Amino acid sequence: MSSLHPTGVFSAALTPLTADLEPDLPVFVEHAQRLIAQGCDGIALLGTTGEANSFSTAERQSILAAAVEGGIEPSRLLPGTGVVAIPETVTLTRHALSLGVNTVIMLPPFYYKGVSEDGLFAAYAEVVERVGDDRLRVVLYHIPQMSAVPIPASVIERLRARFPGTFTGIKDSAGDLANMEMLVERFPGFAVLAGADPLLLPLMRKGGAGCITATSNLVAADLAFIFHNFADPLKSAEVEAAQARVVAKRNQASRFPQMASLKAMLAKETGHQGWTRLRPPLLSLTAEESAQLLAA
Amino acid sequence: MSSLHPTGVFSAALTPLTADLEPDLPVFVEHAQRLIAQGCDGIALLGTTGEANSFSTAERQSILAAAVEGGIEPSRLLPGTGVVAIPETVTLTRHALSLGVNTVIMLPPFYYKGVSEDGLFAAYAEVVERVGDDRLRVVLYHIPQMSAVPIPASVIERLRARFPGTFTGIKDSAGDLANMEMLVERFPGFAVLAGADPLLLPLMRKGGAGCITATSNLVAADLAFIFHNFADPLKSAEVEAAQARVVAKRNQASRFPQMASLKAMLAKETGHQGWTRLRPPLLSLTAEESAQLLAA
Repeated sequence: MSSLHPTGVFSAALTPLTADLEPDLPVFVEHAQRLIAQGCDGIALLGTTGEANSFSTAERQSILAAAVEGGIEPSRLLPGTGVVAIPETVTLTRHALSLGVNTVIMLPPFYYKGVSEDGLFAAYAEVVERVGDDRLRVVLYHIPQMSAVPIPASVIERLRARFPGTFTGIKDSAGDLANMEMLVERFPGFAVLAGADPLLLPLMRKGGAGCITATSNLVAADLAFIFHNFADPLKSAEVEAAQARVVAKRNQASRFPQMASLKAMLAKETGHQGWTRLRPPLLSLTAEESAQLLAA
Repeated sequence: MSSLHPTGVFSAALTPLTADLEPDLPVFVEHAQRLIAQGCDGIALLGTTGEANSFSTAERQSILAAAVEGGIEPSRLLPGTGVVAIPETVTLTRHALSLGVNTVIMLPPFYYKGVSEDGLFAAYAEVVERVGDDRLRVVLYHIPQMSAVPIPASVIERLRARFPGTFTGIKDSAGDLANMEMLVERFPGFAVLAGADPLLLPLMRKGGAGCITATSNLVAADLAFIFHNFADPLKSAEVEAAQARVVAKRNQASRFPQMASLKAMLAKETGHQGWTRLRPPLLSLTAEESAQLLAA
């Protein structure tokens, strides 16, 4: 297991906004540091939960740079760098490498629909070739319910054959444990990371590498406990209790739109109202929704 | 009818690429000029057919600037400027205005799914407010099969009430004539433009403003003839014949992936092989597909 990279619990970190709806960099860095202190192995910033696609290329670069400048080890940072236009994916990926951040999480180009497997392979290959840096490690980002472009095993196989050592893992956010198990079995040494919190425990039992999840913004310590102790029979009751807390928190956050809910819950927990803001088309919870959520 | 703006036949222009898959600006300008010479009222560059979302912000700006510098009147240019991140939509829209191009076609932010009507309204409102330029005219871009974010009439109504004079029309690419008719009736003075070539004629008969279509790259003269003569009973046979040619060409281009097919057909027509290239994840037709298409 330890040979898998990346391995562990990675938080799909939320991004706080100022009153002008700009990324609030100091508050973000503080949050990332807190998540690591709570036991996260790293921060998967600039993912769907982090509202990455609501930010410009320059804003994304400023968020990653702030994390590095804030003292978080580059090896603990897994930024999302995949956007629709290949030149911008290349710019973001090169910027990460320039900061010593070698592992990135890459969405497929997500505008066109019905993309062929050859086209998907060609898009990832074009990015790797244009980046042209042997340090690059890519975690594929499979979230078809949002990207509308699934990443099938056949494409993973071709990418790993064409670029040995580059495609090291996948964040599987489709919620289908059977697909994750299939990937674990088919690709030894390939890190399969659950994108949904409740699946960390079952996936670890099947040889998975860990998770990259949204609820981790609120339950990082429990996820870390599960990750480190799932195989210890003497701790099975504690592991199950941690798992139950994770599932309960996730269910709480799913009653209203998830990202707005997580932000409202984190605002309550930290006392910082900047967490409640989202950039359109996403919106904050209404006062009534927030009251119902937080009363739960 | 003539009070509608924009009114007429606009070509959703294809974008030629160099061997390095960069936009081929001189060939693009030549094509745009040819389309206007063939009767197009304007060029709706940087839309889905133009592979806009495969290009970076800087590349999009270079394509629009080349068209203006190439002598095409700014009032004839309708660039797509809507991307996922609001700051980049604002940058692209301001750049258009800086060139004297006041009407832009704006996709909704297309990454998040299940966006609320309030969120969609807020996203467009945020763009208009950040642009902060009274010259701005926006044509909404309704293409839910690609953007996954439909633009309902209720949102159009709110945007037109909040920003009088700004939201002047819609490109309806969903292919549902009934929706277009509803919009014509509900919003007097609002330009409803068909996004599918076969619908130009039926939409004009219902009070539509024209079309913004892909097949126009190949049949601009026929579309212009339909637009200018659809109401003339003495020309009904010629109008129907033009319509039949448009439909036949569109059907020909629909057997294989549409954009690759249109590019292959334009390469044959112009003798310039640069037209056959697409940027991944879109791919050129295979030699066999191309042969089958062009033999038709």
